[in-house]
Amino acid sequence: MISFTCDYNEGAHPQILSRLMQTNMQQEAGYGDDIFSLSAKEKIRCATGCESADVFFLTGGTQTNATVIDSLLRPYEGVVAVETGHVAVHESGAIEASGHKVITLKSYGGKMRAESLKQMLENFYADPSWQHMVLPGMVYLSYPTEYGTVYMREELQNIHSVCRSYNIPLYIDGARLAYGLAATGMSLSEFATMCDVFYIGGTKVGALCGEAVVFPQGNAPKHFFTLQKQHGAVMAKGRLLGIQFDTLFTDNLYLQLGKHGVDAAMRIKEMFLKKGIPMYIDSPTNQQFPILTQEQIKQLEGRLLFEIWEKRPDGTAVCRFATSWATTEKQIKETEELLNNII
Amino acid sequence: MISFTCDYNEGAHPQILSRLMQTNMQQEAGYGDDIFSLSAKEKIRCATGCESADVFFLTGGTQTNATVIDSLLRPYEGVVAVETGHVAVHESGAIEASGHKVITLKSYGGKMRAESLKQMLENFYADPSWQHMVLPGMVYLSYPTEYGTVYMREELQNIHSVCRSYNIPLYIDGARLAYGLAATGMSLSEFATMCDVFYIGGTKVGALCGEAVVFPQGNAPKHFFTLQKQHGAVMAKGRLLGIQFDTLFTDNLYLQLGKHGVDAAMRIKEMFLKKGIPMYIDSPTNQQFPILTQEQIKQLEGRLLFEIWEKRPDGTAVCRFATSWATTEKQIKETEELLNNII
Amino acid sequence: MISFTCDYNEGAHPQILSRLMQTNMQQEAGYGDDIFSLSAKEKIRCATGCESADVFFLTGGTQTNATVIDSLLRPYEGVVAVETGHVAVHESGAIEASGHKVITLKSYGGKMRAESLKQMLENFYADPSWQHMVLPGMVYLSYPTEYGTVYMREELQNIHSVCRSYNIPLYIDGARLAYGLAATGMSLSEFATMCDVFYIGGTKVGALCGEAVVFPQGNAPKHFFTLQKQHGAVMAKGRLLGIQFDTLFTDNLYLQLGKHGVDAAMRIKEMFLKKGIPMYIDSPTNQQFPILTQEQIKQLEGRLLFEIWEKRPDGTAVCRFATSWATTEKQIKETEELLNNII
Amino acid sequence: MISFTCDYNEGAHPQILSRLMQTNMQQEAGYGDDIFSLSAKEKIRCATGCESADVFFLTGGTQTNATVIDSLLRPYEGVVAVETGHVAVHESGAIEASGHKVITLKSYGGKMRAESLKQMLENFYADPSWQHMVLPGMVYLSYPTEYGTVYMREELQNIHSVCRSYNIPLYIDGARLAYGLAATGMSLSEFATMCDVFYIGGTKVGALCGEAVVFPQGNAPKHFFTLQKQHGAVMAKGRLLGIQFDTLFTDNLYLQLGKHGVDAAMRIKEMFLKKGIPMYIDSPTNQQFPILTQEQIKQLEGRLLFEIWEKRPDGTAVCRFATSWATTEKQIKETEELLNNII
Repeated sequence: MISFTCDYNEGAHPQILSRLMQTNMQQEAGYGDDIFSLSAKEKIRCATGCESADVFFLTGGTQTNATVIDSLLRPYEGVVAVETGHVAVHESGAIEASGHKVITLKSYGGKMRAESLKQMLENFYADPSWQHMVLPGMVYLSYPTEYGTVYMREELQNIHSVCRSYNIPLYIDGARLAYGLAATGMSLSEFATMCDVFYIGGTKVGALCGEAVVFPQGNAPKHFFTLQKQHGAVMAKGRLLGIQFDTLFTDNLYLQLGKHGVDAAMRIKEMFLKKGIPMYIDSPTNQQFPILTQEQIKQLEGRLLFEIWEKRPDGTAVCRFATSWATTEKQIKETEELLNNII
Repeated sequence: MISFTCDYNEGAHPQILSRLMQTNMQQEAGYGDDIFSLSAKEKIRCATGCESADVFFLTGGTQTNATVIDSLLRPYEGVVAVETGHVAVHESGAIEASGHKVITLKSYGGKMRAESLKQMLENFYADPSWQHMVLPGMVYLSYPTEYGTVYMREELQNIHSVCRSYNIPLYIDGARLAYGLAATGMSLSEFATMCDVFYIGGTKVGALCGEAVVFPQGNAPKHFFTLQKQHGAVMAKGRLLGIQFDTLFTDNLYLQLGKHGVDAAMRIKEMFLKKGIPMYIDSPTNQQFPILTQEQIKQLEGRLLFEIWEKRPDGTAVCRFATSWATTEKQIKETEELLNNII
Repeated sequence: MISFTCDYNEGAHPQILSRLMQTNMQQEAGYGDDIFSLSAKEKIRCATGCESADVFFLTGGTQTNATVIDSLLRPYEGVVAVETGHVAVHESGAIEASGHKVITLKSYGGKMRAESLKQMLENFYADPSWQHMVLPGMVYLSYPTEYGTVYMREELQNIHSVCRSYNIPLYIDGARLAYGLAATGMSLSEFATMCDVFYIGGTKVGALCGEAVVFPQGNAPKHFFTLQKQHGAVMAKGRLLGIQFDTLFTDNLYLQLGKHGVDAAMRIKEMFLKKGIPMYIDSPTNQQFPILTQEQIKQLEGRLLFEIWEKRPDGTAVCRFATSWATTEKQIKETEELLNNII
Repeated sequence: MISFTCDYNEGAHPQILSRLMQTNMQQEAGYGDDIFSLSAKEKIRCATGCESADVFFLTGGTQTNATVIDSLLRPYEGVVAVETGHVAVHESGAIEASGHKVITLKSYGGKMRAESLKQMLENFYADPSWQHMVLPGMVYLSYPTEYGTVYMREELQNIHSVCRSYNIPLYIDGARLAYGLAATGMSLSEFATMCDVFYIGGTKVGALCGEAVVFPQGNAPKHFFTLQKQHGAVMAKGRLLGIQFDTLFTDNLYLQLGKHGVDAAMRIKEMFLKKGIPMYIDSPTNQQFPILTQEQIKQLEGRLLFEIWEKRPDGTAVCRFATSWATTEKQIKETEELLNNII
């Protein structure tokens, strides 16, 4: 059965597996000092146009968010995120476990608005009891967001500008970065100027696992490695992460995989719209959110896998269809037939 | 150049890579609900003779120790370990980061003695101010230890018995479990009766990454998964861990890899002893600690890689030679020649 | 100048100071083992009608909330509170610092509604990804709330009933408990049946400092004292807390002080209403929130101290006037004159 | 019965109680903004000769240590202390609870040696795996130590000098500072040049509670107040602490109380020595540690209270006799008689 449940249904891009095979018995140092990791870091510096960038490889998203956020905040500071942000909802309290509050702002289709951020910061320091509260110490965005939406150039610039005026870093969670860049057409090097630290998601874009944290200006906090280790986020066989990112950043593969996933998503979206099925949100990325009736859901049951995102009072449900780097032409065609014949 | 620096110099056992290739495009659920993980858990239950065991897969050792320990302790409790234990020294404070003290006992060649443990516990509760101190809430051992030594059946039983009499769980770090079992000849199912929770190390025994936590009596603390997620220790593509452990626990592969590493180590050890080079400790497992002179170290430089473990006042150094599942006949032969010709 | 800024403007009730003087040179054990603390605990057990209650004395509110909450939650659990709750806003992240998320619900005049709580809990466990989220592990209320409002008998019972059906404890912050009881006429022993743990606030009701945590059913978590110590919340000279609570619970003093503060507040409230000044909220306790215009605020400046609680878009401001056990007839009279002559 | 159990057996110095009475109904701001606290801070700046010192008042020792240490360390850093240091043993893991390891050095009669510290730091950075370990981020000493011993000028200078060469702050726990200064004759202003932050203990020197943290060079970490609040260490009625320290730092009272306690201790010590009873350690401060036989202990039972510090294999016990600011001539005389007649 075809699954659009998430963008980590499959293994890895074949080139990655093939590199793993080729290099398997080569003896290399541990903890990221292998030649693959060194090469991958260099390629990422090149792709982001940040020659002095600090780059670190971690295994998964929650771990990466917790480590980066902990590295940037003082104990009395919290991270500002929208209420639907991954760190605010789906990380089992990993941020709080390292002692930090997630300060939430209203979400607009998954996005933060520069004005809300500015207003919150102004109100905070205008409050006479601000010293009894958690200080807003950094801002967290996801790009694309958990709702598939994505910030336009100007939106990012405005948020970054508010951050700078309060001297707090902007951190972008790029778990699905390739899909966001494909949707907006922004280059990785332009993106890298829009924030103070971000991560390039591998897990959802062709890797078995792995996220690459980038401090574009070589601005990693001191002893980031030790903090990474403390968070259980240093892989002994760092080569596994090095080889994967080295492959993803060879011949532009990472961005191509992003484009592949977004193209597939646009075709799926088109199919729903043609059938008169409304979309919950106008997502330009690899996650699409059609609103299906209970009958439609029943008809698809057993033929297509996807996620029920949110049940609505009127009996319909927001559903999530996630394409990815791995979505095949065959899967799209079969989905089209299914939708045509059934709904 | 041949490296004995550590037991994670290579990639994975070829069967693992080949399984990854075969299953790569099969769509599977995330977070450990894939069929490989389910199958691997069943095989581990079978191999440990614990049919109701709770099994969880995590990525690396530090992360696993931090998660298990945090799951077993109350905030006012600490974990008892020898002063050379991995959690006490080489995890960048991961245990303390989750709020818990590591209470240290003297190490005897890397091992804890049941009597020291008993004495400490007796003294603790005899101290009138014990309520102002960190309560000893569990015991941590590594098997084999960081010095390659390994507990005999009776030693483990004695420690476990002290734990039981104080009603505190015994946790065994099995980062190199296969090498320990190969050295002692203990079966996995017997081992599983010796403690309350342990982990089966994959990273150092043929996997790319991965450790399998086993609660033999189905005694996992409630909501262990959520805590695992909070520690950034849940892999989105859980299949990567599932496939590896499923392979390692097919046809007894895990134990065979352990035997392979230990056999190689015994041959290396023999070579040193033949040359009259003393061993720092009599290790029956895959880590060997010859004491080399500065001249001997210089002679090997550029021909053989290994770790300087500890420099000694007399100018000699304790060196670590780690063999593994991946050590080849060729490497052993070449090492023999090197040692014969040079030292 | 008369100050209604807060309910901790003065020192202590004279009987407390006089007891401190009388007993000053009597040698007593530290850490709460003095005879005053033992006597005070017994009197609290009597006043609450809970003869097997566990009682602990701590110094201040934030410390008490952090300790109690940490003692009741597992690391993957959070505390549910309204968004205006003290633990959610004004404790500088003390709850998060011990690793726990504050899960917020909408506030209705400072109060939580049983239905909101029920709805949230139902939604939580209906969400297929609940294991990736922070589990709601307990409920926090303040009585009276930060807005001076107070739960009626039935409201408390309904919330407690939801808690019980989900098997999570209900904790009530009684920083101003005496004022709440005076307003509702509920007895302390009835109140004690409405929750699983609460604290009796001393600091705002006549003590120099001190809060008494009560586990009515003798249901204190094991080793609460050690956790209290870990939170820096054990006073070496426990006698200071013991003497104060022993005095407050002699001849019903605590409840009388509450009544005194509420009577004063009702008179102040009446004055504002007579002058046609609207109240932001209909508070029956010692905190009153008149909505003043900028002109009124200017007229009072330099004559009366109070807090600007919230500036409103129309130029008016919600102001807080807090009376207390210490408010004098003279202060009330002078305030009346001021309001009559000026506004 | 006379008690030498500890130096917090009594209430407060009478002048403190009398100031509390006089000022009781004066309305003052909360959280340390009262005029007493402001005055006390100024007097402490004067007494320490540090006109730009940052001064903060907290309630107790454990709380103070936890807050100061948390304010100075980054998450991957630990605090270095001797193995008998208060933070290492008797704070129920308060330091670890805020995420930091206590790195222990051998204790020499309760004291740290500059050479041990230097050696540890050298070894640490010489260890190739130091990035996998907890970084030594600051040094903690107590003055006097838990064994009544006290650092001489040069010893402190040497330790401070090692700290400076590694660029890590030196923090001194002055729970019993007055007794230490009385013993060494060092002035408070000289003492203030010997470290980067220290606290002046009130609880054990005449206050009901209260410790004053001093950053002599105005070098308090940013937002120390907010961190203090997070640690539950801000007193709502800050006046209680302000009045006490204002009194203690009027007319040199603090130092006089220290001298009084030490004088009493010297007389007690003399009595033991005259009777041929050996002292466990040669303490020049208010804690004395005679080694008593079981028979001697039995003879004193029911007549004199003191602490059994450590039972020894030969049946004797190290006992602690603590004098204080409150020890009376009558108590000393009676003790003398008791010792003469009984032992």
